[in-house]
Amino acid sequence: MAYPGYGGGFGSFGGQIPGMQMGQPVPGVGPNMLPGGYPVYPVHSDTCSSADASMWTYFTAVAGQDGEVDAEELQRCLTQSGISGTYAPFSLETCRIMIAMLDRDFTGKMGFNEFRELWAALNAWKQNFVAVDQDCSGTVEHHELSQAIAEMGYRLSPQTLAAIVNRYSKNGRIFFDDYVACCVKLRALTDFFRRRDYLQQGFVNFIYEDFLQGTMTI
Amino acid sequence: MAYPGYGGGFGSFGGQIPGMQMGQPVPGVGPNMLPGGYPVYPVHSDTCSSADASMWTYFTAVAGQDGEVDAEELQRCLTQSGISGTYAPFSLETCRIMIAMLDRDFTGKMGFNEFRELWAALNAWKQNFVAVDQDCSGTVEHHELSQAIAEMGYRLSPQTLAAIVNRYSKNGRIFFDDYVACCVKLRALTDFFRRRDYLQQGFVNFIYEDFLQGTMTI
Repeated sequence: MAYPGYGGGFGSFGGQIPGMQMGQPVPGVGPNMLPGGYPVYPVHSDTCSSADASMWTYFTAVAGQDGEVDAEELQRCLTQSGISGTYAPFSLETCRIMIAMLDRDFTGKMGFNEFRELWAALNAWKQNFVAVDQDCSGTVEHHELSQAIAEMGYRLSPQTLAAIVNRYSKNGRIFFDDYVACCVKLRALTDFFRRRDYLQQGFVNFIYEDFLQGTMTI
Repeated sequence: MAYPGYGGGFGSFGGQIPGMQMGQPVPGVGPNMLPGGYPVYPVHSDTCSSADASMWTYFTAVAGQDGEVDAEELQRCLTQSGISGTYAPFSLETCRIMIAMLDRDFTGKMGFNEFRELWAALNAWKQNFVAVDQDCSGTVEHHELSQAIAEMGYRLSPQTLAAIVNRYSKNGRIFFDDYVACCVKLRALTDFFRRRDYLQQGFVNFIYEDFLQGTMTI
């Protein structure tokens, strides 16, 4: 394992869909360097090309006059799409986290390419969520999210896992939008940390302002 | 200034209301050690005692059978209270952040003492928000939040300030619940960082798991 204690997160995402890296892209972080390899996302150039035209129509309907999608527009879009499987609005906070992950220029918005990548990722997460939700309740339980995080390759203590899972649960269960928020944040914070861990040893010396900029905006 | 580049955050909060510190309490961090000193919060032992009985009634109505308030209960409570000045539900994410700040045992809930402290803090933030909102629009603008953060004592670059403010805005403006989320998170992440900065020099060597536990749960 190239990086002890680190998770693969999106599996092969890092190398194949570089737009999903938050902030500056990480060159050369291919799937072979990552443990876990879970979940395996489709390579968008193969799978999404036939759907590009209809997705472009969808995107332009969602994006405002500026031609970019912000968090509120993404929230409306995802709520209407019914991807969360409930009638409740899709979490605005999750939309903000997802955009922050893609938003390299800190504008709080994303263009068509990022929208397309996010859409592919969301559908993969949905499949993954459904697979984890073994009793088909529409939510997953604490131990199911803990297990999913471990399977993603993150090597965390039971105490850290419990604290994280608690943070993203409602009444003891985890809904799809919170599940996504947890996965995206884990990945984005790990990427943020890893980019500064030049020797890949699992610890980083942070300057206060850099620490704050990264963690406040994710 | 005892800590270059750091903000006072809640002003005199640190020393006088230790429950507002996230995680383990920090002994001996008194108001004189903090720059800014803004906003000045009431000392609850003096100002809240007369209201304790009615607040206890309120608390027991909000808390469920377990006698503690979780994020959903706090959201209902704050939405009904009308503290945000809008008819929209108070942000669940902000409630989670506020509870995380108080939640030293990572249960995701808070008891009466923390509820009382939070209530005092929220009212102080509200007064502060109203003071910042110079045109009485019910929201504050980017430059107003930037200015407020600077006045709290945080010494951040314009780029970092802009990234943070962008993250907490909706359609270019900042609502009360997002304003609170931003302030609480700034403070909680600063506390988290400062507790590990043993020499108070403005940089910290983080182990990956510790970094993740702190930043994922705030």
